[in-house]
Amino acid sequence: MELTVYLAGQIHDNWREELIEQAKTKGLSLNFVSPQVDHARSDSIGEDILGEQPNKLYQDDAASSINNFRTEVLMQKSDIVIGLFGEKYKQWNTAMDMATAITLNKPTILIRPESLIHPLKELSNKANVTVETIDHAIDVISYVFE
Amino acid sequence: MELTVYLAGQIHDNWREELIEQAKTKGLSLNFVSPQVDHARSDSIGEDILGEQPNKLYQDDAASSINNFRTEVLMQKSDIVIGLFGEKYKQWNTAMDMATAITLNKPTILIRPESLIHPLKELSNKANVTVETIDHAIDVISYVFE
Amino acid sequence: MELTVYLAGQIHDNWREELIEQAKTKGLSLNFVSPQVDHARSDSIGEDILGEQPNKLYQDDAASSINNFRTEVLMQKSDIVIGLFGEKYKQWNTAMDMATAITLNKPTILIRPESLIHPLKELSNKANVTVETIDHAIDVISYVFE
Amino acid sequence: MELTVYLAGQIHDNWREELIEQAKTKGLSLNFVSPQVDHARSDSIGEDILGEQPNKLYQDDAASSINNFRTEVLMQKSDIVIGLFGEKYKQWNTAMDMATAITLNKPTILIRPESLIHPLKELSNKANVTVETIDHAIDVISYVFE
Amino acid sequence: MELTVYLAGQIHDNWREELIEQAKTKGLSLNFVSPQVDHARSDSIGEDILGEQPNKLYQDDAASSINNFRTEVLMQKSDIVIGLFGEKYKQWNTAMDMATAITLNKPTILIRPESLIHPLKELSNKANVTVETIDHAIDVISYVFE
Amino acid sequence: MELTVYLAGQIHDNWREELIEQAKTKGLSLNFVSPQVDHARSDSIGEDILGEQPNKLYQDDAASSINNFRTEVLMQKSDIVIGLFGEKYKQWNTAMDMATAITLNKPTILIRPESLIHPLKELSNKANVTVETIDHAIDVISYVFE
Amino acid sequence: MELTVYLAGQIHDNWREELIEQAKTKGLSLNFVSPQVDHARSDSIGEDILGEQPNKLYQDDAASSINNFRTEVLMQKSDIVIGLFGEKYKQWNTAMDMATAITLNKPTILIRPESLIHPLKELSNKANVTVETIDHAIDVISYVFE
Amino acid sequence: MELTVYLAGQIHDNWREELIEQAKTKGLSLNFVSPQVDHARSDSIGEDILGEQPNKLYQDDAASSINNFRTEVLMQKSDIVIGLFGEKYKQWNTAMDMATAITLNKPTILIRPESLIHPLKELSNKANVTVETIDHAIDVISYVFE
Repeated sequence: MELTVYLAGQIHDNWREELIEQAKTKGLSLNFVSPQVDHARSDSIGEDILGEQPNKLYQDDAASSINNFRTEVLMQKSDIVIGLFGEKYKQWNTAMDMATAITLNKPTILIRPESLIHPLKELSNKANVTVETIDHAIDVISYVFE
Repeated sequence: MELTVYLAGQIHDNWREELIEQAKTKGLSLNFVSPQVDHARSDSIGEDILGEQPNKLYQDDAASSINNFRTEVLMQKSDIVIGLFGEKYKQWNTAMDMATAITLNKPTILIRPESLIHPLKELSNKANVTVETIDHAIDVISYVFE
Repeated sequence: MELTVYLAGQIHDNWREELIEQAKTKGLSLNFVSPQVDHARSDSIGEDILGEQPNKLYQDDAASSINNFRTEVLMQKSDIVIGLFGEKYKQWNTAMDMATAITLNKPTILIRPESLIHPLKELSNKANVTVETIDHAIDVISYVFE
Repeated sequence: MELTVYLAGQIHDNWREELIEQAKTKGLSLNFVSPQVDHARSDSIGEDILGEQPNKLYQDDAASSINNFRTEVLMQKSDIVIGLFGEKYKQWNTAMDMATAITLNKPTILIRPESLIHPLKELSNKANVTVETIDHAIDVISYVFE
Repeated sequence: MELTVYLAGQIHDNWREELIEQAKTKGLSLNFVSPQVDHARSDSIGEDILGEQPNKLYQDDAASSINNFRTEVLMQKSDIVIGLFGEKYKQWNTAMDMATAITLNKPTILIRPESLIHPLKELSNKANVTVETIDHAIDVISYVFE
Repeated sequence: MELTVYLAGQIHDNWREELIEQAKTKGLSLNFVSPQVDHARSDSIGEDILGEQPNKLYQDDAASSINNFRTEVLMQKSDIVIGLFGEKYKQWNTAMDMATAITLNKPTILIRPESLIHPLKELSNKANVTVETIDHAIDVISYVFE
Repeated sequence: MELTVYLAGQIHDNWREELIEQAKTKGLSLNFVSPQVDHARSDSIGEDILGEQPNKLYQDDAASSINNFRTEVLMQKSDIVIGLFGEKYKQWNTAMDMATAITLNKPTILIRPESLIHPLKELSNKANVTVETIDHAIDVISYVFE
Repeated sequence: MELTVYLAGQIHDNWREELIEQAKTKGLSLNFVSPQVDHARSDSIGEDILGEQPNKLYQDDAASSINNFRTEVLMQKSDIVIGLFGEKYKQWNTAMDMATAITLNKPTILIRPESLIHPLKELSNKANVTVETIDHAIDVISYVFE
């Protein structure tokens, strides 16, 4: 059984590579997908494809429509959704992707530092499992294959 | 036709009263519901009902289960969901409630200040309508009754 | 039993008033809803609420988001959807509303002139009933109450 | 990951071949399906299989039932739906297929010329992404594989 | 609590009146709906509304589209579906209505004579309850109100 | 806003009356429904309606079909499902009703004594809220009306 | 693209073999499934597995539960459902399977002789395509691959 | 056609190995998945991954969240769910898994000893098939491949 895992969350550090590396080390049969992780590309994709827009609002609107298209295609192909919150940034897309996954009955793992327990308490309560580290998220998925 | 509107969003100021007041002034046939807006009560509801918990994590977990129960009951009764983001706070519950509503095919209005255009661009693209003020949200709902 | 009927279709003549009048004459217990039928208002609603937009594309985008919000709210409240096509205009919204209603399992009646049999053949085949006049549409709904 | 793409839209020129060619050039792992693109066959399929019908209405009804059967089978197999509108023709099937795909939560791309911005504004607002050229539609899908 | 009951089944005798009478006698808070029970009207409704059709096949096709419209509207309003099979007639509409109701998760009661146990065994196994008389069907519904 | 509450759980003591009494005392606008609480009637309902069955298995099968019919009708009308487990009995129907409600996205409250924490841990994790007393269940529902 | 086709309908002649043979001759990439076609086995499967039952009713009930299990497993795997009605027999399972498939949005083809136009008119109107021969059903599926 | 079977039920004996062995002997093309069957691991998985918890309640809560995650992932991949009840233990997870599967329209087989007919009568009535032995469950699945 091969499972596809969508990795929602911040795109400012290399947590996805780490997590994928650990999955490989454990020999888990997983296929990973994610939002665009090149931040500049993710912001400019609207104008990259559609050309110059009249102002910042419409640059963002153009980019977001293509980012949302990508996320919908890939999330529908996924069996599991992991969402990681870091201490910086607003990360509303992570909250949005997790809530979407939960409402679609996709099994979910929330990764968040101890410092975010309080503001993420309702989302944590709705996710299947909440952990604090990438290692633990991999342990949870690994348990499915035991 | 009477419509029920769920008011997701921050509970730190009185935007809901203002919005409800404007709806009343316009004579719109609306019934409003919302999360618990007494912040202290929302944080302590777990221990208020279930008694003392071992630590902050479990206080929050107990509170969040009851807050989520409330939200599910009321959102299922709603025809429209409005989510308001302000400039302060993490507001992950607002993002979660809006994404849940969108995935459940509830018609949605996002209210956010100009300063949040960029971080909310994907959520804004998924919501039906995005506006910057309470007045405009009421104008949009008012248009349904024209 | 009172039924709510959504009247999709062109907003360039008074077919809705005629249909509603006939329903009243027959004493049918029906409640009617529809898209915005004031064409100018429907086109300007985006700028009416959100203010001036940078160009025609964005005027239209702003208006359409509010028109779609209205349609979603009202169609979800409806038990029956009637779509009328006339001989002029592109009427892609009518096709869109009918296909949406059909996919949501709303019972549907298509009204179209004989001249449009060919280009509407696939939509006609998917709708529950196809008729050529408003009188016949009312006859079909009247049959539900027999 | 291989994705299946349904190509809704006019069958009067060779836009599908162009689009498929571009996808091949870019090495995208896509599988394409579409309505019957031989216009004469699409119109006569009812009588081709079921034999002579009493008049034009029934010829069309017979053909449409088989065309709709084909579209349902293939759209249910699709991960993405692209709809292209040209400047001529009524193209109500394109509007119907796009609205069906959107209501089924299939990710969608609308291709339409600048001249059709206004009449397609509501459908454009509901689709995930709107572009003006085949190249841009391929760019959007290509972005999913980045 | 008032419940709406759809009465599927043959339209050749007055079993519906009997059943409704018994419900009234027991004081059950029920609202009854059904297909068109005037057999001639049910067969001619297509031509009654749409005018003369080219042959029997198209008379039947026209009538069936309007009968199906009626059934869809009324079944969607129903909380319970009762289907009665008698010893005569093909009664494929009864089987169709019951299977539709079961697939839509409507609670169902099947009424059939002992002589039809064998040919109805699979449908009986899928329905919630199978009884042999109208009295028993009323007893089952009455039990919901105890 | 009036809410309907389904009370799943053991039928061997009067916990439902207590809970309903407390709701009345608090002035909550609730309407309560439940499985048949007369145990003998619940066991004999199959034979009461359908007559003598060949053996215990078929007595039970006849009764269960009518009990399940009742539960389906009433649960579909409910906004909230409460399930109470006591220390005695197998109570598999309570587990079944709760899992059904959870899968149907009905908001749920689980009431169970401390002694059952371990065997009910997975069901408790899936329910919205878990409490140990009837008072606490009423407090949770009361919070929805604050 | 390989499609799976469920062949509902009478099990008294060899129409399935004929149809499968024609599909093979045309080189269509189809995989066929069906109910148990050995009539005796289909009737005795309950007692074959579960042992002797108290009477005919329970023999039939036991058999039907296993036949329904088989049908559910296989229909859920199917992309297309074909239902054939012959001139003899009650064939309520065929009507049940077709209505189930239609309600599950499975694309359907109804095969029935001219003599059954009238009693099957409502089912025919709900199916995607109605034909009179096996050849025509294969022609319709073949059209999907053109 | 390969089918995936989820084996819900007690984890105190080796019934799964027996069942899998019999399937292999019969050459059935089946893939089996199940909850964690190492009881100690199933109870400690929360602390194994997340570290020490403040008390028994939270140990259980942590374990259950990970067990439920595993079950959701695997059940969504399954075509058939088998649930086995033995004479000992509370087995509420088995009832929960079976009710979840039934509500998700997964075809189900219930295995239970004669002594449990009465307390499992409602669940048995909702499952597709009820048998008393592992052999019979394999016979039922085997019948799908005939």
